[in-house]
Amino acid sequence: MVRADWNKSKVALISGGGSGHEPAHAGFVGKGMLTAAVCGDVFTSPTVDAVLAGILAVTGSTGCLLIVKNYTGDRLNFGLAAERARVLGYKVSMVVVDDDIALPNLPQARGVAGTLFVHKITGALAEQGADLDTLTKAAERVVKGTQTIGMSLDTCTVPGSPKQQRILPGMAELGLGIHGEPGVEQVSYDSAKAAIAAVAAKLTTVMDNKPHVVLLNNLGGTSTLEMSILANELLVSSIADNLKFIIGPAPLMTALDMHGFSVSVYSATSEDQALMAEPCAPCAWPGCKSINSVIIKKLPDGLTPVKPVPSWHEPMANFITRWCQVLIDSEADLNALDAKSGDGDTGATLAGAAKALISALDRTPLLDPAQLYRAIAQELSQTMGGSSGVLLSIFFTATADAASSGLPMVAALKGGLGRMQRIGGAQLGDRTMVDALKPALDALGDSFSAAASAARKGAINTSTMTRAKVGRASYVNAEQLLGHVDPGAEAVARLFENLRDKGQI
Amino acid sequence: MVRADWNKSKVALISGGGSGHEPAHAGFVGKGMLTAAVCGDVFTSPTVDAVLAGILAVTGSTGCLLIVKNYTGDRLNFGLAAERARVLGYKVSMVVVDDDIALPNLPQARGVAGTLFVHKITGALAEQGADLDTLTKAAERVVKGTQTIGMSLDTCTVPGSPKQQRILPGMAELGLGIHGEPGVEQVSYDSAKAAIAAVAAKLTTVMDNKPHVVLLNNLGGTSTLEMSILANELLVSSIADNLKFIIGPAPLMTALDMHGFSVSVYSATSEDQALMAEPCAPCAWPGCKSINSVIIKKLPDGLTPVKPVPSWHEPMANFITRWCQVLIDSEADLNALDAKSGDGDTGATLAGAAKALISALDRTPLLDPAQLYRAIAQELSQTMGGSSGVLLSIFFTATADAASSGLPMVAALKGGLGRMQRIGGAQLGDRTMVDALKPALDALGDSFSAAASAARKGAINTSTMTRAKVGRASYVNAEQLLGHVDPGAEAVARLFENLRDKGQI
Repeated sequence: MVRADWNKSKVALISGGGSGHEPAHAGFVGKGMLTAAVCGDVFTSPTVDAVLAGILAVTGSTGCLLIVKNYTGDRLNFGLAAERARVLGYKVSMVVVDDDIALPNLPQARGVAGTLFVHKITGALAEQGADLDTLTKAAERVVKGTQTIGMSLDTCTVPGSPKQQRILPGMAELGLGIHGEPGVEQVSYDSAKAAIAAVAAKLTTVMDNKPHVVLLNNLGGTSTLEMSILANELLVSSIADNLKFIIGPAPLMTALDMHGFSVSVYSATSEDQALMAEPCAPCAWPGCKSINSVIIKKLPDGLTPVKPVPSWHEPMANFITRWCQVLIDSEADLNALDAKSGDGDTGATLAGAAKALISALDRTPLLDPAQLYRAIAQELSQTMGGSSGVLLSIFFTATADAASSGLPMVAALKGGLGRMQRIGGAQLGDRTMVDALKPALDALGDSFSAAASAARKGAINTSTMTRAKVGRASYVNAEQLLGHVDPGAEAVARLFENLRDKGQI
Repeated sequence: MVRADWNKSKVALISGGGSGHEPAHAGFVGKGMLTAAVCGDVFTSPTVDAVLAGILAVTGSTGCLLIVKNYTGDRLNFGLAAERARVLGYKVSMVVVDDDIALPNLPQARGVAGTLFVHKITGALAEQGADLDTLTKAAERVVKGTQTIGMSLDTCTVPGSPKQQRILPGMAELGLGIHGEPGVEQVSYDSAKAAIAAVAAKLTTVMDNKPHVVLLNNLGGTSTLEMSILANELLVSSIADNLKFIIGPAPLMTALDMHGFSVSVYSATSEDQALMAEPCAPCAWPGCKSINSVIIKKLPDGLTPVKPVPSWHEPMANFITRWCQVLIDSEADLNALDAKSGDGDTGATLAGAAKALISALDRTPLLDPAQLYRAIAQELSQTMGGSSGVLLSIFFTATADAASSGLPMVAALKGGLGRMQRIGGAQLGDRTMVDALKPALDALGDSFSAAASAARKGAINTSTMTRAKVGRASYVNAEQLLGHVDPGAEAVARLFENLRDKGQI
């Protein structure tokens, strides 16, 4: 895979190796990173001819740099391709990345995720027009300063092969590579904190005191949430004080679907830091960001609702008490209706809310309708559980809003209903209290009697509605619902019948 | 989570919901996308107080827009928080995203990955200074034009709960949500092509003929390689002609570790396209790129090695034949030595290469040393298998390089050895042919006799080397190696002894 926008005027950067490490390396081809990637089959080095084709496709008179991970197959195939290209007159240089520190003083350390540091720094330098010698030296310097260690809860699934079950639940492998090869040791896995501590303990032995760039790599099968938790632990770990810039967390050098991560560190000069932060085209590159401490903001003012100023109004107190009593008296009936379509607690929920409203009367602003609705909303949001408590609270808050903007009572109530419907999603015919409440409010301007009739008719209608579309009844079979009135609609009908029979406040 | 660089001068965009969908929504907080994200526990809506705290923390006089996925808990908690904020005098508007098309005409479609279109378009507009009304209308327009369908091979692992084993191997669920809830149907899973075809068949029913932006979302546990394969299939699917821009593949709206993907489409105006492509700060946003056709380049010239022009030189032909005969005669001995440390084929490999070289003599440029070495390198790379074939090919190519640059023979051979060592990684003491070849070349300037002695001494030394550091012998126990000469070093010693005994060419 080669850059489409390439004219060979600058030094070409070529990497590659076996596939299965995506987005490495094809995903890093683009302005500011690689010029070409040469990809073999999964976990298999590309052939000499493939590498040579890559070199010939992108290399101009300024030459090319091969960035090779330290595996025998890659070294040999890239190495021989380089020789063949030199025979053809090309200037070719090659660096071998060996950033794995799983085993101390390993003479042939593997090349893993730290390779990305080389891609990025040489990519930015090459874009600035650096020559092959400068790039080669820069790459060697980055390789020398880069260390990586990985950890995984599981091996990877190689296409066509049965999955190895080497790591038992509760265990993790530390110091493993990117091909599912066994790690240096198995450790018991307690938590993300312990995992990062184990990794940091390995890295701390090879880190100097200068500011480091850290790369947190998803080995392929770790969820974004898990990677975020690891990132959080990393930034409070024993090496945190040395980390100034972070790349990721992101899948950068994966091992197919391996459920693990690796951490790479690089002691970066300020010039390196600038090159790491330079924008580049490949969207697989997550950027290199400076690590800032998290600012914890105080909770804003206004969360505690303003306590209403109580005001007494005998007729309103009596009316509220009467309506609440209707709900209290209906508890058993409404529970029985709810048992047909839900969990049988509508009566108890409404009766509980009614009792709470009655006992709050003496601290309620009964004289001012807008303030009254707001106080009821607040009381319901605190005492009435579940979706219905939130929905009725929305109804009364929105009604208060409308009333305080000067709308007459019926219009304000309709405004409140509209808001509740938009948020709750219930339309007429959805087998909810809306089927009684909406026609009742529509008729309320005419007479209490008309409102009561409309509410009752609406409630009866719900017994013919075979498909509930919102709320818990939506999970119940149509046959079970048929012939039973919705308990919320029944409650509304009873309230408006009470209004008709006992008159207005 | 709120933007650190926020001064409330523009309209605030607030989203959120249960956690477990990372990077959504906290990962999209930043300039050009969200102003704040309010996150509940895993798969649990945040409380009204939490949402209200978010609103109060970031909302200025220009107001805020709440972007809510269509789940009852989110609608109610964000809805009531909006009401409470309005009571406090804030301008708050709310849009509900319901992009899931799993079931046709579902009155309460779920909000899934298409939510990202809303975040991005309103985010770019808000950054440009659009007012609340404009943003609300834009969000509603994007919601209306967005459709998403998901597919998964497995459910997700909810922390603290045993994993549901609902989807059997060989099956996939189509039309599932982002909480592990069952999909609309189970289908047999054949291939990535069939999976994309099933998804495209659902989407094609709701797409118009205009250019669409497509978002390919990793549901959390799909490897980068798998996502790339799905992307490739998507771009040649039945809906490919309608797709002009792509976001991802990337984890954007995940369901913890779910092994699946979703595809979202949006029929975008050119204004929308520009807003989607606008740069933004959150690094979880992978960018929106125009879909270009892949250009397949022809293989470059130069892959076929230039055929050498044969030239006959009797003494050189005799010398090569003699050395090759040494290797042919040593086949059994070298195989036996290799059986102690490897797979017992060194003798056969070298004898085979020797026979090939002899039979190629009449098409070999025997008169010119540089050309001769190059021809040998080519012959070995074609006829001699394994790492040793590649390594010897590198040795002879690099020697040819050095010779053609004018170096005398011994220096050229040393240059070739150096290159082979750098690429192969073998140092003195690593129990390889280098242990005989390097001292032999170092002594070759003195006399053939000195070279032969040095080679023999080096070969014998390998029998005391208990740790091979490169090649296959590195996997063998020290005790098994002790007392046995490395077969490659033995071959080198025999060649130089032959040179001493039979004289120079």
